[in-house]
Amino acid sequence: MKILGIDPGIGICGFGLVENDQALDFGVVTTVIGAPLPARLKELFEGLTEIVETSKPDVISVEKLFFSKNITTGISVAEARGIVLLVAEQHNVPVFEYTPNEIKKTLTGYGSAKKGQVQDMVKLHLNLDARPKPDDAADALAAAITHGLMAKIS
Amino acid sequence: MKILGIDPGIGICGFGLVENDQALDFGVVTTVIGAPLPARLKELFEGLTEIVETSKPDVISVEKLFFSKNITTGISVAEARGIVLLVAEQHNVPVFEYTPNEIKKTLTGYGSAKKGQVQDMVKLHLNLDARPKPDDAADALAAAITHGLMAKIS
Repeated sequence: MKILGIDPGIGICGFGLVENDQALDFGVVTTVIGAPLPARLKELFEGLTEIVETSKPDVISVEKLFFSKNITTGISVAEARGIVLLVAEQHNVPVFEYTPNEIKKTLTGYGSAKKGQVQDMVKLHLNLDARPKPDDAADALAAAITHGLMAKIS
Repeated sequence: MKILGIDPGIGICGFGLVENDQALDFGVVTTVIGAPLPARLKELFEGLTEIVETSKPDVISVEKLFFSKNITTGISVAEARGIVLLVAEQHNVPVFEYTPNEIKKTLTGYGSAKKGQVQDMVKLHLNLDARPKPDDAADALAAAITHGLMAKIS
């Protein structure tokens, strides 16, 4: 099962493609800072469309949204998430969602794990030489791994 | 100038097309309650795409998001808003955004006006026989009228 993890964001949207505990690809879609929001959403839409069409995932695993920190950031993440879900549906790829706590708990056994601990588990799980960079790509890989583990036990 | 007002929402998304203080068209795009979110966002995307391609607006006026009431509703409105902005950009239609208070103030002179007062002003301004229904379409027409008035004075 080829799982595309996505960490939604307007400025930087992380992605990570995982199959059989191997990272096939990971990185970020970035949009131009300061450009109007509609233009950035279209850039994101086109970037994600290309990734989905190239990588042909069986499933997409997305981080679920919470507004614990910043409402303004939260709005823009939700707008980006709308684009992610649209692209998934346009390509008939089922979407699964996990909260940040579910992802942390699945990877480290601890729902309040620090970012570095999660990244170490991503590195270990995928047998990488170093923590994946940037953070957004690591978060996307963590979402993909979480779905892989959850699918195994369900 | 043909202005398409939009009141974003996942379940019901209002639209209203205004030109020279006349309502050319108004109504709502609805999506299936209980359907998975990605499917609903795709329905919304297709409905809005059809409206924009049919009505060929010069500008789109959208209600700006605030999270005063309900964060969960707010997230889904933001996801819908992402789709609205994407469709606008895909058709090269510039987007203007107004807060609910700006819309109320522009139409009634009073930023805390009640829904009924705003709808009466929409009816009056567009010379309609009755308040436009449903509320979401009335809100969309109000957004369109607001941009028309703001464009005149700017």
